[in-house]
Amino acid sequence: MHVHSVLIGDNWRPAQQVGVFQATNPATGEQLPDAYPRSAWADCEAALQAARQAADAMRSLPAEALAAFLETYAGNIEQHAEAIVTAAHLETAYPRSPRLADVELPRTVNQLRLAAGAAREGSWAMPTIDAPAGIRSMYGPLGPVFVLGPNNFPLAYGGVSGGDFASAIAAGNPVIAKAHPSHPTTSRLFAEQAHLAAQTAGLPPGSVQMLYDMAPEDGLRMVADPRIGATAFTGSRSGGMRLKQAADAAGKPIYLEMSSINPVVILPGALRERFDQVVGDFATSCLMAAGQFCTNPGLVILLAGTDAEKFATAMAEKFAQAPVGTLLSAGVRDGLAANVAKVVKAGANALTGAKPAEGAGYRYSNTLLRVDGVKFLADAHTFQTEAFGNASLLVLASDVREAEAILKTLEGNLTGSIYSDTQGGDDAGYAALAPIMREKVGRLLNDKMPTGVAVSPAMQHGGPYPATGHPGFTAVGIPASLVRFAALQCYDNVREHRLPLALRNKNPNGTMWRRVAGKWTTDDV
Amino acid sequence: MHVHSVLIGDNWRPAQQVGVFQATNPATGEQLPDAYPRSAWADCEAALQAARQAADAMRSLPAEALAAFLETYAGNIEQHAEAIVTAAHLETAYPRSPRLADVELPRTVNQLRLAAGAAREGSWAMPTIDAPAGIRSMYGPLGPVFVLGPNNFPLAYGGVSGGDFASAIAAGNPVIAKAHPSHPTTSRLFAEQAHLAAQTAGLPPGSVQMLYDMAPEDGLRMVADPRIGATAFTGSRSGGMRLKQAADAAGKPIYLEMSSINPVVILPGALRERFDQVVGDFATSCLMAAGQFCTNPGLVILLAGTDAEKFATAMAEKFAQAPVGTLLSAGVRDGLAANVAKVVKAGANALTGAKPAEGAGYRYSNTLLRVDGVKFLADAHTFQTEAFGNASLLVLASDVREAEAILKTLEGNLTGSIYSDTQGGDDAGYAALAPIMREKVGRLLNDKMPTGVAVSPAMQHGGPYPATGHPGFTAVGIPASLVRFAALQCYDNVREHRLPLALRNKNPNGTMWRRVAGKWTTDDV
Repeated sequence: MHVHSVLIGDNWRPAQQVGVFQATNPATGEQLPDAYPRSAWADCEAALQAARQAADAMRSLPAEALAAFLETYAGNIEQHAEAIVTAAHLETAYPRSPRLADVELPRTVNQLRLAAGAAREGSWAMPTIDAPAGIRSMYGPLGPVFVLGPNNFPLAYGGVSGGDFASAIAAGNPVIAKAHPSHPTTSRLFAEQAHLAAQTAGLPPGSVQMLYDMAPEDGLRMVADPRIGATAFTGSRSGGMRLKQAADAAGKPIYLEMSSINPVVILPGALRERFDQVVGDFATSCLMAAGQFCTNPGLVILLAGTDAEKFATAMAEKFAQAPVGTLLSAGVRDGLAANVAKVVKAGANALTGAKPAEGAGYRYSNTLLRVDGVKFLADAHTFQTEAFGNASLLVLASDVREAEAILKTLEGNLTGSIYSDTQGGDDAGYAALAPIMREKVGRLLNDKMPTGVAVSPAMQHGGPYPATGHPGFTAVGIPASLVRFAALQCYDNVREHRLPLALRNKNPNGTMWRRVAGKWTTDDV
Repeated sequence: MHVHSVLIGDNWRPAQQVGVFQATNPATGEQLPDAYPRSAWADCEAALQAARQAADAMRSLPAEALAAFLETYAGNIEQHAEAIVTAAHLETAYPRSPRLADVELPRTVNQLRLAAGAAREGSWAMPTIDAPAGIRSMYGPLGPVFVLGPNNFPLAYGGVSGGDFASAIAAGNPVIAKAHPSHPTTSRLFAEQAHLAAQTAGLPPGSVQMLYDMAPEDGLRMVADPRIGATAFTGSRSGGMRLKQAADAAGKPIYLEMSSINPVVILPGALRERFDQVVGDFATSCLMAAGQFCTNPGLVILLAGTDAEKFATAMAEKFAQAPVGTLLSAGVRDGLAANVAKVVKAGANALTGAKPAEGAGYRYSNTLLRVDGVKFLADAHTFQTEAFGNASLLVLASDVREAEAILKTLEGNLTGSIYSDTQGGDDAGYAALAPIMREKVGRLLNDKMPTGVAVSPAMQHGGPYPATGHPGFTAVGIPASLVRFAALQCYDNVREHRLPLALRNKNPNGTMWRRVAGKWTTDDV
């Protein structure tokens, strides 16, 4: 059997392998033909060594080379969009259009180009100059970044194509990507184009490397390796927690996006005012891509009453009538079934679903569960179990005070939404609930479901633990996401010609924002 | 015996205590009269609960109240400077003047006032506005901060008076301070003034609290408590590592400043060009305050040769002739003796010192050790042992290449300095060594000892692990030090009247810097 090569140093080469795997088409459950290696530690070791050398070489590279790489790569992806979309469609069962071709792929190249712009322009590094004291500082590269992408965004969060990759490179670091084993061909097609772009742009060998898989213990060893600068992981809480423990013990920064149930509070006035719109928003948000979003609204809090009952009924109908999406893998399906069962066992009622779906492929019935506030509060931890996929839990609180108590039990989440009416009738409820919600989430929304994650400089795709490992960083949004992969580096009394260009008196490009004497300016010092 | 009260909630009250302790005058070894409690967990619990409530109340406080508190407090400190300096002098044996009265106290009030300015002005929170997308974000408070100050800066880094305290409050968080048991009276005098200032400024009860001591296991429980937002610790590596482990396991941010040997490279041209000045710089920096600085130059790398020999001889003379300073405690003295012995046992030669000092108080002879590069490289870990106090190690490398190898073995440090000549003779050496040094330290210096840590917006008083826990943050320098105690909070589609003032279209004070459409501006949106 032909087994694909791994990208180490500047070459595609046969893996030192401990196993071989093939991806599965989730729509059929059938194995796909290409065979990929699970790397032995020897491959990790070789990649680490090459990355370490690349990190040194990248330090003296002009930012323009990083930008050129990212832009060339984006162009290459567009030229090979058809093949990438086809591979991703086979490996994830996501629709080619609009999802893959018209949403996720454009988002991917957009992120790469925004990162290129940030690298070229340089303001992301926040150069800060205290000329009278002779002290200057800025963010500088941290060293090789190990990126582990998730199963649910094969393009825009892919280890060798997504936001973590783009921001790690733009900040001047080499990347060692681990492909997600659910979509190795998609990852390979990306890595091939990244490799060619790196050569075109003159990045040093080892700037972009990719392994398909490795033993879990080798993954833990990677994040703790002295040659690693930081790790970025998007995935399950259990996997993230193991990596975090290994990184923490070694004193290595790790950025995790682990799990989130994205609470949504719908206040009564919003239902009275725009019932159909709220129902539509919620059903669309929950069932899109079979709910396989990190920002999927998994917990909806309503105030008990006639409108809430109507909402529950209408939602259950929508869920029952909607087509059942395909899940990414047998693991996702089984995890969803197990977590739904756990929440039902704790006392939630199934308004619809909560059972296997008929037909081919990895699927599970659209599931809407319901519990009242008293029951929720009696076992708040279990009712916060993330059921990744097309399932959500409605919680009917008796009043605002009970809703407050519910919010207070919540763990950290990526997002939290509050729907309220526009005439002020919900204002008291909003005022009581929003401050509690604010502290629990990275992004607070009004009158909007959280599923969309705009690539905006003001985005916070992050939040308090255990949604992520540190509430001060975002995984989406440029330039802020670059700072994760940077160290704050100060120069004290360093002679001007030895300073990085960004810290010399002359503004290197006339457009870079620098903090000089307490003011942000693009002027020379 | 009268035992002093602890500050919990809005009151000084008798501790629930598990023990009583008294501080010692390091100059005489005699116990000081005041008795202080070691708190039981009940005190910690009460403080946590009060801090949690204070955190909620502080969220709706105008920034002006935070600023007013910090400024009132700074004024109070100046009014009580005489008493504070006297207490600190007795508890640390630092000279009243210039050290305490003329350097550290002015620095302390300066930090508080700078933090007040940052809180009032608001730019520290980096408000970022993407108006077309309806997405806005800024840094917001993280929750109660547990601050553990070190022994060596009783004022400027004190748990209830120092930079961590000032920045945690300025970012809108309550502080629970743990006094350092070496200087409880100094800490009490500060806390009394902080408490009065908090009442004057209308801070909610529990905004400023202080315990004198607690069992180590209760300290670990504090950092992991769900009510804590973050912990800030300055002190020994062993203590910091235990706290880090507890915080990491609970997913709580912790900012540590643990240990640093602050490597200094002196290139041959610098010695040829300005021998006396370099000798003077080094001796002053090493022996000031008996070397009890986190930025004390503990490791000096020279290139072997006549000038390096002359330097070693001159330094040994200076060390032998200089008065022997008093150390902060029996523990510091014993730790210094043990670590010097460890390095000697590993193969370093004592050029001078390496033995107990005669006379009263906690002292140890000024100690200069020497080892050659080959020996250093054979046991680099041991030779990097931090000997906190008046001791340094000279390493004589055979050439630049060996110096490179030595730098490559170094752990993360707060600072690193390189001395070179001004005529270009050392430029090749600098070019080879600076990039390696850059990656190992938070602050890179030229021709300057690292001991001074200016309170500059461009300062980085931090660095790679294990000098600190994360290389992206600084403990000194305003506004950057505030961000440690903040979460990145995004508002998506939130109605304008519900936004924090800093994120509304109108710039709230006309001077706040905000990032709007990729540009920093003080304009309205």
